[in-house]
Parts: sequence; C-alpha cells; structure tokens
Amino acid sequence: MAQLISDRRDIDFVLHEQLGLVDHELFEEFNKKTVDLIISEARNLAIKEILPTQQPGDEQGCILENGNVKVPESFQRPWKLYKEGEWLAMADDPEVGGQGMPKLVSLAANEYLVGANPALLLYSAMTHGAAKLVEAFGTKEQKKLYMKKMFSGEWGGTMLLTESEAGSDVGALTTSAEKNDDGTYSITGTKIFISGGEHNLCDNIIHPVLARIKGSPEGTKGISLFLVPKYHVNQDSSLGEFNNVICTGIEEKMGIHGNATCTLSLGEKGKTTGTLLGEINKGMPAMFKMMNEARAFVGLQGFAVASASYMYALDYAKTRIQGKNILKPKNGNVPIIQHPDVKRQLLNMKAWVDGMRSLIYFNGKCSDIAATTNDELEKEKYKDMIELLTPIVKGYGTDKALEICSHGIQIFGGYGYIKEFPVEQLMRDSRIFMLYEGTNGIQAIDLVGRKLRMKDGKLFNNFIEEIQNTIKTSQKIKGLEKITQNLAHAVSKLEITAQDIKQRMGSEKILNAFSFAHPFLEVTGDVTMAWMLLWRACVASQKILKKAGSLEKEILIQKALKNKDIAFYAGQIKTAEFFINTILPSTLGKMDAIMDGDTCVEDILEQSFGV
Amino acid sequence: MAQLISDRRDIDFVLHEQLGLVDHELFEEFNKKTVDLIISEARNLAIKEILPTQQPGDEQGCILENGNVKVPESFQRPWKLYKEGEWLAMADDPEVGGQGMPKLVSLAANEYLVGANPALLLYSAMTHGAAKLVEAFGTKEQKKLYMKKMFSGEWGGTMLLTESEAGSDVGALTTSAEKNDDGTYSITGTKIFISGGEHNLCDNIIHPVLARIKGSPEGTKGISLFLVPKYHVNQDSSLGEFNNVICTGIEEKMGIHGNATCTLSLGEKGKTTGTLLGEINKGMPAMFKMMNEARAFVGLQGFAVASASYMYALDYAKTRIQGKNILKPKNGNVPIIQHPDVKRQLLNMKAWVDGMRSLIYFNGKCSDIAATTNDELEKEKYKDMIELLTPIVKGYGTDKALEICSHGIQIFGGYGYIKEFPVEQLMRDSRIFMLYEGTNGIQAIDLVGRKLRMKDGKLFNNFIEEIQNTIKTSQKIKGLEKITQNLAHAVSKLEITAQDIKQRMGSEKILNAFSFAHPFLEVTGDVTMAWMLLWRACVASQKILKKAGSLEKEILIQKALKNKDIAFYAGQIKTAEFFINTILPSTLGKMDAIMDGDTCVEDILEQSFGV
Repeated sequence: MAQLISDRRDIDFVLHEQLGLVDHELFEEFNKKTVDLIISEARNLAIKEILPTQQPGDEQGCILENGNVKVPESFQRPWKLYKEGEWLAMADDPEVGGQGMPKLVSLAANEYLVGANPALLLYSAMTHGAAKLVEAFGTKEQKKLYMKKMFSGEWGGTMLLTESEAGSDVGALTTSAEKNDDGTYSITGTKIFISGGEHNLCDNIIHPVLARIKGSPEGTKGISLFLVPKYHVNQDSSLGEFNNVICTGIEEKMGIHGNATCTLSLGEKGKTTGTLLGEINKGMPAMFKMMNEARAFVGLQGFAVASASYMYALDYAKTRIQGKNILKPKNGNVPIIQHPDVKRQLLNMKAWVDGMRSLIYFNGKCSDIAATTNDELEKEKYKDMIELLTPIVKGYGTDKALEICSHGIQIFGGYGYIKEFPVEQLMRDSRIFMLYEGTNGIQAIDLVGRKLRMKDGKLFNNFIEEIQNTIKTSQKIKGLEKITQNLAHAVSKLEITAQDIKQRMGSEKILNAFSFAHPFLEVTGDVTMAWMLLWRACVASQKILKKAGSLEKEILIQKALKNKDIAFYAGQIKTAEFFINTILPSTLGKMDAIMDGDTCVEDILEQSFGV
Repeated sequence: MAQLISDRRDIDFVLHEQLGLVDHELFEEFNKKTVDLIISEARNLAIKEILPTQQPGDEQGCILENGNVKVPESFQRPWKLYKEGEWLAMADDPEVGGQGMPKLVSLAANEYLVGANPALLLYSAMTHGAAKLVEAFGTKEQKKLYMKKMFSGEWGGTMLLTESEAGSDVGALTTSAEKNDDGTYSITGTKIFISGGEHNLCDNIIHPVLARIKGSPEGTKGISLFLVPKYHVNQDSSLGEFNNVICTGIEEKMGIHGNATCTLSLGEKGKTTGTLLGEINKGMPAMFKMMNEARAFVGLQGFAVASASYMYALDYAKTRIQGKNILKPKNGNVPIIQHPDVKRQLLNMKAWVDGMRSLIYFNGKCSDIAATTNDELEKEKYKDMIELLTPIVKGYGTDKALEICSHGIQIFGGYGYIKEFPVEQLMRDSRIFMLYEGTNGIQAIDLVGRKLRMKDGKLFNNFIEEIQNTIKTSQKIKGLEKITQNLAHAVSKLEITAQDIKQRMGSEKILNAFSFAHPFLEVTGDVTMAWMLLWRACVASQKILKKAGSLEKEILIQKALKNKDIAFYAGQIKTAEFFINTILPSTLGKMDAIMDGDTCVEDILEQSFGV
C-alpha cells in the first residue's frame, strides 16, 4: 500500500498551506521542521507498532478474571512505546508533564495514532481527560499527586458518569458520597459503560466520579465530582491499599473490543474513598468545562477511522482489476477506480475526509489562538468558535464517519464484509462514536438549544462571518465562480434557517424546533464542510497559478499528469466542486424542510406508532 | 414486548386495505381467513422457534471440519419445523412441490420468518432460487430428480457464480466444463462466497454452477449453467457417491454468522460431474431470468431486518424512562418516545419500514397479476413494473435498511452497541444485503443503464403513470392537499430528471450519466416511498371518514386516543406527512444536482485522490 491511515500530503497541506501554525513564543520550539518530524514519528509509531494490534485486539478483546481486566496481549508493547515517546500529553503545559506542543500539531499526530487502533488510544484519551479535570479543578496537592503520573501514561484515568438509570439524564444518578472525619468522602454506587474502567496497562487508575453528597439537592444541581484512585496513593506517590473499586462486568460490544467497557462498583465490597475535586455541588459545570475537549476528541476518533477506511478503499480501487472501462471496452480489464460509480464513492469519501480534517484542525487552531492571544476579544471569539463547532465536530462528524466507513466496505464489494480485510472492523468500531460523550441527538440539541442562542446568536454570527471571509477570497479567483456562488447561496439560506429555528426555540413552537434539531445539525455540518472545501480550493488555486500559470482545464490536466503536486491541488478544486455542486443541493432542500416546519413529529400520537 | 419482528396490524393493512389479494381461481383456496391463518402460523414459527436462534447463531457461527460444515446446533430444530410446515415453496406450483399461494401472501409470511433469523432463512432462499432454475430450464428428468426434494427443504441448493477474480464481472470466470461420453460434464474450478455452499441441514445440496465449456467464447457469451449435486442422485432419488464438491474454507464475516459462506472446489480432488441446465452458452440469460426474484428477496431481507429493528426500538422508546418532557418538566421522568429527537427518529424508521412493506408487497402483487391475467397487455405491464422496481427494492431498499438499523441502535443509546440487545446484530447482518446479488452500485447501473431505457422508456412511464393515479385519488381527499401537491411536484421533477439522465446515457455524456446512477436510484427510491405512503394515507383517510366522520385535527386526536384503529389510520397520514414534507425536499435538491450534471467525477484524475 502506498499510504496507510492518513494522507500525509493532505495533512501537510492543511497544517502549512491552509491554516498555518500559530506564531507565538510559547510554540517557538515547534518550527515547521520540528513539527514535520513529530508527525513522522507519530506515523512511524502508528504504522509499525500500533496498527498491527488493531485486528488482534478486535479478535481477542478484553478478558475479565476475578475483577482484573486483561487487555489484548499485543497492546502492551505499543503502550510502552507510547509512554516512552511521551505522546499522551502532547499539547499540555510542560509544568505538569505536558509537551507544550500546539494543539493543531497534536491533532495531526493523533490522527495517525487513533486511526491505527482507536480501542487502544481510547485508554490514553480517557486518561488525558481525567488529568485535565485534575489540572482544572484540583488542589495543589491533587495536582502534585496525580498529574505527571497520568500525563506520562504510567497511571490511567477514566470518567465515572453513567449509571444504568442515568445515561443522557445525568441528573438522575444515585451514587452517593459521605464525608469522613479526615476530609475524604466515602463513595457508594455502581457505574456502567466506563471505558478503560479497569485494565492491566497501568499500575493505577484514577477515577473522577460524579456522585451526590448526602443531603445535596436532586438533579444536576446536587452533583459533586470526586477523585477516586483504584489504589490509594501515598505522599511519596507510591501505591497504598486497594480502594475497592471493583470491576463486576465488561460489555460484549459491536466493536472497540480492545477497550474494556466496565461496570464498576464502589464502596459495595469494602470502603471506597475519594477526595473532592473542585467545589461541592459543582460537578456538572466542571464536567461541562471538559466536555468540548472530550467531544472534539470523539470527532477526531470518527474522522481518523474514516480516513483509514478511505485509504484502504482508495488503495483497493487502484489495484483491484475488475470489468472494463465503459469508454474503452477493448482495452481489457481495468482497476475499479475507473468505474464511475466507484469513483463517485471515493470522491464522496474524500470530500468528507478532507473537509473533516480541515474542520478538526481548524478547531484545534482556534484553541491555539485562544491560548496565546493577549487580545481578550480575539480570545473570546475563538473560544466561542470552539463552542459552536463542537457539536458539529462530534455529532455531524461521527454520523458521517459511519457513512464513510460503510462506503469503504462497499468499494471492497463482498471482500469488504469479511474479516480478512480491515474495513468491516472500522465500521463496527466507528458506530460507538455516535453514542458516547453525549449521543448525536444530544449534540443536535446542544447546537439548537444552547449554542445557537448563546450571547444572543453572536457565536453563530461569527461563524457565518468566517465563512463569508472565505467566500470573499474565493470571489477573486477565476475558475471558482460556480462553487463560490453556490456556497454563498447556501450560507444565506442557512442564516435564514437558523433565525427561523431560533425564533421557534423561544416560542410555543419549542417542540417543533427540537424535532428539527438533528436536521439543523446536518445542514450546518454540510455548510461547514463546503466552507472548508472552498477554502482548500482557494489555497490550491493560488498554488496552481504559481506553479502551472493557468487554471484552464486542458492545461491543468496535462500538467497534473506529470506533476504530483499539481495533481494534488487540482484534486482540491474537484473535491470542492463535488461537494458544493452535487451534495449541497440536497442540503438546500433540507433547509426548505426545516423552514417549512411541518408539525407531524409533534402531532403523531404514541399510539399511532404501533402497539 | 408488544410485538416482535413486524407490526401485524400494518401487514394486514397493506394486504387487505391498501393492495387487496388478487381474485383468481388459481388462488381460490386462499381466502382472507386462510391467508390470515397462514400469516399467524408463520409468525408463531418465527417468534417461538426461529427468533430464539438468532443470537446463538451469531455467537456460535458455522464450523468447518474436514470439509464438513456444522451450522449452529440450534438451527436444526426450526429447520425441521420449517420443512414440516412446508414453508420453502409457498408461492410455487403444486405440480412440482409448491403450495400454490399468492406471492403477496408468501411475502407477508417471509417477512416474519426472515426477520426472525436472516442467516437461517438464507439457506432456504438459496435452495428456492436453485430450484427455480431447475423449474425454468431443467429437463423433465432434472425436474423429476430434484424439484420436490428441494422445494421440501430435504435437499439444499446454492448458486455457484463468484470466483476470486470474477465478482461483479461474471464474464471473467475460469471454471471450466468438459463433456463426457455419457453426456454429463466434468467441472473444474473454485468458487467463492457461496452462501450455504456446504452445511448439515440437508442430506444433499444441489449446486447450479456457471462454467465455460472448453472452446466456448470468452466473456459472458461463453458461459453455461450446470447442475452439480454434492452427492450423485440415483434414478430412485436415493443418494449415490460423493461428487467431490469440497468446501475448503468458510469466511469470517461481519454478520450473518449462522450462514456458511463457502469456498468450494470442484473437480480438483477427484472428478466432479454435472448435467447441463438449459442451453449451451446460455448460462447468463438463465441467471438473469432468475435475478429479479433473487434480488427482490434480498430487498425483503433488508426490509425484514429493518422492521425488526424498528419494533425493538419502538418498544424500548416506550418503556425506557429517561429525562423529562420539555413542556412538562415537573411531571417527572418520561419514556424517551416523548423526546422530539427520539420521536423523529422513530417516525423516520416507521416511514421507511411502512413504505418498504408496501413497495415489496406491491411488487409481489404485480407478480400475482402477471401470473393470473389473460390479458397480454396487462401481463406485460406488470412484468415491466417488476423489472423497474427490482433495483429499487434491492438497491434502494437495502441502503435504507442499514440506515434504519443504525437508527435502531441510536434509540437504544449506549445499550444499542452491546450484544445484550438485538439491534447491533441486526445492523451487522443487514450490511451484507448491500453487497450480494449485485452490489447496490450494480443495481443503480441496472436502473439507469437498462431499465430506464428498455422499450424506449415505457417501463418508467408506466411507473410514473401509476403514481399519477394515486395522486388523482388523493386530490379528491380533503386534508391531504399539502402532501398531494408536494408529491405531484416531485414526480414531475423526477420525470424531467429521468429524461435528462436518459439523454446523457445515449450521448457522449455516458460517463456522467453513470456517475449519477446511484443518486438517481436514491431519488427514484424516495419518490417511490412517498408514493406508497401517500397511497396509504388515501386509504387511511377514507377509513377515518367512515369511522370517525371527520379528518379535523382536534376531533381526530380525541377519537384516536380512544380507538386503536383510528390511531393507526391517523398514523398513516402523519407518516406520509413526515416523509413527503420533511424528507422529500432534500430529494428535490438531489434532483437539481443530477440535472446540473457537474462533471467533477469524470474530471478528477486518479492521481488527485492521493498517492
């Protein structure tokens, strides 16, 4: 195979040509050369060490014996190398054990690492998320005890949120906490669906736990956050006694078999204690603060898996000989990429993979800008942008990841359905991303019910303004007229649609607005993809003009056939044309449906669904 | 659970209220009472005996030992009952062992049987297809030897078509046949992906095999069809020697684990002989004659599995308590069906499941009319209708089945992803339907490249005319104005789109037409769904007027709350409104894209996809 997991040329394009690194003294160590080296290192680790564990991990899964979970044996070596390479906290503060890298660069590295084995990398993502909670809300003591151990990957981390009767409705949880004389809390309850809740990759596991202190209010307002280690930790960081966090079961899942999804019981067979993390009854706001990052990571998971599926499908389509070229039937059998329906599916995959890469990296760059700028208005603007983009990255992104993985199977034909080829596993793996960290229904509600209305619509207006800026650039480029006009039209229509939905949200039509929440997420996502692809086409056009002197079709084809770089840039324009001219028209229709606002979903009685 | 696999009320609606049975002496035994009894019997068998084998079949899969395949042990009992109940050849000629039932009724029975365990029922479907080939092309001798044994399920059947280098391109096959002195042929070659190619449910397996007689032309023109039994059959139907059809491997698949997907070697370890079925070099036309039926069955598989997923999701949504009603937050937690996004997803599932049931049954009714009418023009018309509908039933239907199964998972939230609940298996099982019996890309090409152009467009015009007839009925019904107008608009637009694509097919723009083949299948499928749902709404409106006296919203709600039947009919109207008013607008946009005919798919160079 030419390339595995991801297209390096495209990664470099987004990093250095479309977006550009943030220039700031905080990142001065990370010049282009260093960045490229980091990504090459990540790619090497991903392809040589992690990818070979993807299929065995699926086949073996995790084993629970006497409360101990064994991960697939093959995971131990890449985990060790991952720790040694200090990959877990790439973009975090060196003060607490991070590498201080720009977020943008860490995303490129993670694209390879996650795409190689999402189940393995989920252990590190959970650890990272838990450590970030300690960083944000921990006492000096807590940070000292836990941060470096977690950021190094020596200890694992999780998030104990879900209970069997408290899934999307977190406020219904029943796990309780009672204060002890020494200031710690005794925790009692059972949590389910805990990714990496118990495993043998790390010496210790630190569990942030949502629980209700006895006497606290019902619902989300009475929830506090605690840090509960698997083994107690002594002042010198050595491990103390077992804290009675017991794994009583692991789930048999559709995919992601290499990651243990655990049921954990706390305080039910012996005492489990933890320390308060943050303030009493402020567990939910703390969670929410970390939510965007966790959700963005799920979006990355979906995207990385989709990218891997695309790479496999592309390679297969270029090498699988089957059938004749329609226009040249006498020339014998040809690679299936020459068949229009296969080529259409590949271009479809490419459009979303490319668009999603740009979006995810852009979201990362927003975070780099917000972290480095001294301009408070700019900081706010980019933080707002992240707020708005999060449900798109997570909800829209993972919906589309599943579709892309399904196309990957389809391009392989019957071979796509069998375990001899990697694409069926990628589809099974990808299905979880639509569910965890808030189902995609929750993402849609987040967009329509919160993000769209925050600061009186300012977030959404900023987002539209950014798209308009790209359109303004594009308007000046000869050859991009059609896609520029088409996107401009779609953006105006999206603005009206958003206005419409927002009005319904604040009226007696609120149920109607919520019933169109997911379609609204879809149209916003589509327009975002189109924006990213138009932006790419602008950059590519300017490069072509510089290198080939003309965007004229025939000249371009001749030059592209001889020059890989020109072929790459020409592909950017074609991909934008594909998405904007052949996909976006349906999006416009979907906006019509949202604006029409048919009330059938509210109207239909439960009884009418069948008995 | 209230209902499993399928909604019986809806089955009865389509059979007796929407379509009606074909009244003909051939079917005189099958009055309404008998038909209802048959379906109840099928449902009993499906739910009590077959459904309990679905999950164990997935878990155990098939085992290959020394060339022998063992199906999951639990399959033996339902297979025995299935044979005893004479379910395999329900709608076939009693002369050769069939039950002489209307096709329409057999589909309703099969909906339950297949929905209970698609892997098990695939053994019978393959057997049925093979027997139909014998019926259509066999000599008197061949029919006498094989038909009753196969139609009873005592012997199995398959279809040996695919080879590793000949998948969608059947003409590339290399299996060869050489005539022996006794008139039989010696067959040599290896076939792959043979569903039910070897198993222990039957005493013998009869393999129709596509092979090339030595000296025959290359490509599809030189392919003949042979009947190759696993064990030779003596004149008295007793079994003779092993015919050296050897199973050398079975595939590890994403789903459908209970059905053995075999690699079969013929004539490679000892002689394998078969008899010619039909004429020399006419194997492909023979295959094509059986293709519509096989493809329609795959459409049914997809639909049945989607229906099962919908039933599970509906039950879950009605019983899972989580979160509060947006409008009545003080009333405590409610079933999730009350949340607009969940309700939207359920209505989405219902719309496609209902529409697909009507379409599949209508397709069956066309076959009943064609089989019984003496009017040659009518016969031709309904045969043409089947030709046109087949790629929609198979290609569009199974694309949507996967989507519906994915919604089924989403409604279960995290629980949907684990094996404790049945919906994840349904999604894995359903993924194969998009691939076999011609990938859905092949179906799209069949629609655009063949069916649309046959008889100078007559098939498509007839199809449009039938939709127009429903619209004419609908125009007379008060309350259906909006959906009637919306569908009428979509149909006119589909006609123009079809005209446009047809012109491109016959011009130098042929590649462009093929690159829009799948989008064209999608829009045609969507309009077909809308047609079926409007048709249902017409029938339901008339029933409501009869029973409730009014279609006025408030009155209807009050009556529906008290009367199950009125609730059911009211649901038909809401479902049509959902599809036509909220889904079809996107379809119109997709038609715009097809008509715009952007050339990006043809234009983009292979080099531009990435290296």
